[in-house]
Amino acid sequence: MFIYPHMYRKLKRGPQVILPKDIGIILSYSGVDKESVCVDAGTGSGWLALSLAKICKHVYSYELREDFIAIAEKNRQLLNLDNVTFKNKDIFKKIDEKEVDLVTLDLPDSQKALKNAYKALKQGGMVVGYLPHTEQVKTFVEKLNREGFSDAYTVEVIVRDLLVRKEGVRPTNTGIWHTAYLTFARK
Amino acid sequence: MFIYPHMYRKLKRGPQVILPKDIGIILSYSGVDKESVCVDAGTGSGWLALSLAKICKHVYSYELREDFIAIAEKNRQLLNLDNVTFKNKDIFKKIDEKEVDLVTLDLPDSQKALKNAYKALKQGGMVVGYLPHTEQVKTFVEKLNREGFSDAYTVEVIVRDLLVRKEGVRPTNTGIWHTAYLTFARK
Amino acid sequence: MFIYPHMYRKLKRGPQVILPKDIGIILSYSGVDKESVCVDAGTGSGWLALSLAKICKHVYSYELREDFIAIAEKNRQLLNLDNVTFKNKDIFKKIDEKEVDLVTLDLPDSQKALKNAYKALKQGGMVVGYLPHTEQVKTFVEKLNREGFSDAYTVEVIVRDLLVRKEGVRPTNTGIWHTAYLTFARK
Amino acid sequence: MFIYPHMYRKLKRGPQVILPKDIGIILSYSGVDKESVCVDAGTGSGWLALSLAKICKHVYSYELREDFIAIAEKNRQLLNLDNVTFKNKDIFKKIDEKEVDLVTLDLPDSQKALKNAYKALKQGGMVVGYLPHTEQVKTFVEKLNREGFSDAYTVEVIVRDLLVRKEGVRPTNTGIWHTAYLTFARK
Repeated sequence: MFIYPHMYRKLKRGPQVILPKDIGIILSYSGVDKESVCVDAGTGSGWLALSLAKICKHVYSYELREDFIAIAEKNRQLLNLDNVTFKNKDIFKKIDEKEVDLVTLDLPDSQKALKNAYKALKQGGMVVGYLPHTEQVKTFVEKLNREGFSDAYTVEVIVRDLLVRKEGVRPTNTGIWHTAYLTFARK
Repeated sequence: MFIYPHMYRKLKRGPQVILPKDIGIILSYSGVDKESVCVDAGTGSGWLALSLAKICKHVYSYELREDFIAIAEKNRQLLNLDNVTFKNKDIFKKIDEKEVDLVTLDLPDSQKALKNAYKALKQGGMVVGYLPHTEQVKTFVEKLNREGFSDAYTVEVIVRDLLVRKEGVRPTNTGIWHTAYLTFARK
Repeated sequence: MFIYPHMYRKLKRGPQVILPKDIGIILSYSGVDKESVCVDAGTGSGWLALSLAKICKHVYSYELREDFIAIAEKNRQLLNLDNVTFKNKDIFKKIDEKEVDLVTLDLPDSQKALKNAYKALKQGGMVVGYLPHTEQVKTFVEKLNREGFSDAYTVEVIVRDLLVRKEGVRPTNTGIWHTAYLTFARK
Repeated sequence: MFIYPHMYRKLKRGPQVILPKDIGIILSYSGVDKESVCVDAGTGSGWLALSLAKICKHVYSYELREDFIAIAEKNRQLLNLDNVTFKNKDIFKKIDEKEVDLVTLDLPDSQKALKNAYKALKQGGMVVGYLPHTEQVKTFVEKLNREGFSDAYTVEVIVRDLLVRKEGVRPTNTGIWHTAYLTFARK
């Protein structure tokens, strides 16, 4: 049985969320810190944008659906964060921000945002794609290479619960096997 | 082939380090943020202490061996961080800090620091044990319960690399299977 | 969603069964063949005993509970196998057979049958323990060494389903993470 | 450290072999037994063909390269098996056998043998593809559907070694993560 970390237990879930297991690896592999400015799309329920906002300087999160922004805004208030801006705009058309440190993409066609992501990122900045299917990973990596990104690598994050009980220690019988692959690359 | 995130590639490795895969899950599962004060022991090469320092307000890291502190201090300078204090003191004897948000323990007998960790933590603060063997997990969880911690749960973090090449997409043939279990609990 | 191989779909399940993923590894790692004579305990629903009987010369399966033997006997008839003998006897007291090739143990205290297993096995024969908890593995391995077995090694078998659909290829979201560890050793 | 089961330790390895972990699942998921007739291609070092021969009635193994057949023939003699026939023929052109129970395919373009496999199999017989890349799995499954096979499902077999030592029980640090996907289907 998957146990949600404390912070996430009070958050609302509308559209499918990015789980803490994937958020953690995005945090440590991207190397964001207190000075980082991040761009995120799509917002969804806002879990990733808000997790980044807890740590970074500012997060700009793009989402076309107003009902999703309403859920994310509710979650923002629950966490009492004032450094995240939800934008009801199309990231495929434009990213307003410049010199950002990280762009996170969780969209049906995330690769279509890579040209804009490249322009928005500062030199050395990172992009991360959250990609459920292997074909999406392939398309994303091919586009990364064409747009000039380097160091592309892809991982799958598996967090396995261990039961620790009087009768003995063992992994749980069932668990979450797959959410999405994470593809990282550097400008 | 495991790919180190950019930040970690320049860091020195003396004693065995905690890998970015485990650091990421400590970050997202503990829920630390810019206001958090953390206590860490043992420092080792300082990877975890410095990763926390990039994100948190201050990190106090306890280590008995001066040669390890020298390596961690070198890494601190490489990352240009000024909010981490290395302490050449025994965490089993005393934790000087009060009202801290997170205590991370990577020691041969981490459970022996739990009484001090409980005193140092603020209400709702978290402790994390980095525990290679199943027996250590069991001992740690039993001590957690005796010391009054709640919500203990244990996970194992597996990050699997996916090869994306012209000849096709597939996981790498070999990889890192196990470093340590992570046991979380709340005061 | 775990898919049962065809043969197993028609079988009845009474007590917890050993799954085809574990049965397969028992077959290939023990190296049994058409000439092999096997001893099995406890019978349970008979899945392992019957899988061995499909391949081997004869299987003797020990079970204390008559209601379990009734289920296994029903399954035997469904598979139309005549080379398996269910024995309502206590394997901790005695194994009647001699010079057997394989002894498989799935009991609450499997290590208690190891002395008898050693006597029953021919030189070079193998024993396999099906052990859910890590503590059981440890106890079993310690007993193996005391009883004179060699080459003890322990594995965990994970069979992960891959979804292949129009929308893309990816692992299933959830799945079976753990049944039991398998410990093999040689006389 | 991966431990080879006893039977395999004496076998020669020329071309890449199918490992016991995958062989075991082929055995238990295909449900072959003493009455089964199998067709295999390509032979490679013969590990799969010989593992099937230990259990089944007869195995016909197709291989274009004579040097591979020489290795497999050497392995056949080491195991003293007389019920396997190596055929220096192209399985893409023809399968001579009829009414077979299992066809196993480990070739660069295994899907090209599916039309012949369908003809060779008896009703209810199974085909298995050993497919390293996700794209091969997709192509194979599409061809399976076009050729009239049913019940296609794909798995990945992960066998993880557990260290059981005085200092404690834990999985090995590194291990084999991936060999190939196994796709099963039924005529």
